[in-house]
Amino acid sequence: MKTQHGESVLSRAARILEAFSQDTPALTVSEIARRTGLHVATASRLVAELVAQGFLSRDDDRRVRIGVRLWELATRASPTLSLRDAAMPFMEGVHDVVGHHVQLGVLHGDEVLFLERLSAPGAVINYSRIAGRLPLHASSSGLVFLAHGPAELRQRVLAGPRTAYTPDTPATPERLRAVLAEVRKQGYAYCPGYVHEEALGLAAPIRDADGTVAAALAVIVPNTPHAHTLVPVVRTAARGISRALAARDARDRRA
Amino acid sequence: MKTQHGESVLSRAARILEAFSQDTPALTVSEIARRTGLHVATASRLVAELVAQGFLSRDDDRRVRIGVRLWELATRASPTLSLRDAAMPFMEGVHDVVGHHVQLGVLHGDEVLFLERLSAPGAVINYSRIAGRLPLHASSSGLVFLAHGPAELRQRVLAGPRTAYTPDTPATPERLRAVLAEVRKQGYAYCPGYVHEEALGLAAPIRDADGTVAAALAVIVPNTPHAHTLVPVVRTAARGISRALAARDARDRRA
Repeated sequence: MKTQHGESVLSRAARILEAFSQDTPALTVSEIARRTGLHVATASRLVAELVAQGFLSRDDDRRVRIGVRLWELATRASPTLSLRDAAMPFMEGVHDVVGHHVQLGVLHGDEVLFLERLSAPGAVINYSRIAGRLPLHASSSGLVFLAHGPAELRQRVLAGPRTAYTPDTPATPERLRAVLAEVRKQGYAYCPGYVHEEALGLAAPIRDADGTVAAALAVIVPNTPHAHTLVPVVRTAARGISRALAARDARDRRA
Repeated sequence: MKTQHGESVLSRAARILEAFSQDTPALTVSEIARRTGLHVATASRLVAELVAQGFLSRDDDRRVRIGVRLWELATRASPTLSLRDAAMPFMEGVHDVVGHHVQLGVLHGDEVLFLERLSAPGAVINYSRIAGRLPLHASSSGLVFLAHGPAELRQRVLAGPRTAYTPDTPATPERLRAVLAEVRKQGYAYCPGYVHEEALGLAAPIRDADGTVAAALAVIVPNTPHAHTLVPVVRTAARGISRALAARDARDRRA
């Protein structure tokens, strides 16, 4: 399974898939070689095999993209699809009322990974994207995970580097500890200007049947005091999703 | 890159990923071996490597699932994300009015592949799912692709086997040709009871900047004559998405 250089084919394939992002969805083979550090001949051979399996596809202009088949295989049995299905009716309801952005995030590798985002045309600036990530200390969803998650997670984040996106980002240990205490007390994260000065994030925990925080529901709206009126909207929807998850879980156990 | 049996590691990895579906999102290694025809030892070794790369993950009970990392890599640079982003505001609007199901499909491998679906609680029965497929001759979205697609596609579908899901499915060549002529004349597919007798599909084409049919927008509602009032809703939204795609295309060309 190993190549002569000791790295497995699958590890190299993963590096190639990681070279693509929302900002760079199409790459030439030489761009792939540069981004992965693979020799052009190796990259070219692996890309050809990944294209043959439908993991990648080639444009008319020979640029390479993620294959629709890979998206299909990764999505149809995705471990997050049932969470997303439970959340969507509530997210649509919140989106009708709030406009701007409504998003669903999970904790993955000490970051928030966004599973779903509903956005309105002309909505406020928002760095999060579907299948995009944000650090825990700066995003409203992340602060929900950090406040309710295990102590080791808080210790890692408090020990690690923390970007200050704006002067209001809780980047110092004192400020971050104070914000987390507030999130735990209030039951939601209210984050004016933490990621961008024009935007405000507001997130509440979604709990599974055992009471563990499984996800976070957040809205991103313009950074004005008016946003405070949305707190009960987001909390109510997050609780509704939690109840939908518990009901589904009970149904699955009976089945 | 080939194993001693002549099949590449990536081809075997693809077979393993294909073993998972929405109905079987978690499998043991021996179930994977059975479904793929791989020896248990081979399956076990490959699964371990796929877990190490984040393509698969292992539950507490040792069952294996699609990895969140694979979903992330396949989604963040997905070739269909820009179509989905353009369509979603319109789909949400249609869903507010229509309830039940609103879905976005593309043509992939002589089938409809559904990229997105919005569903209401208590909605009518619907066989389509996100990242699920339906045959072209039976589904409203499929009939849109078949009516407007290349002649070779129609010939292949007319020559191949066609399941009659209900007595109303256009499964005979005569009936299918008549339905396709109607879809082309009317500009939409109106399909009472073609997939399930209780459901009615209604689909309209989404065209890219060149006028090619790039996707289909469909609603699935109860099979009653009242559904006819939804024709202008679906057509208007499909045209709106087409215009949004053309505007995005023009913007990308200028950039």
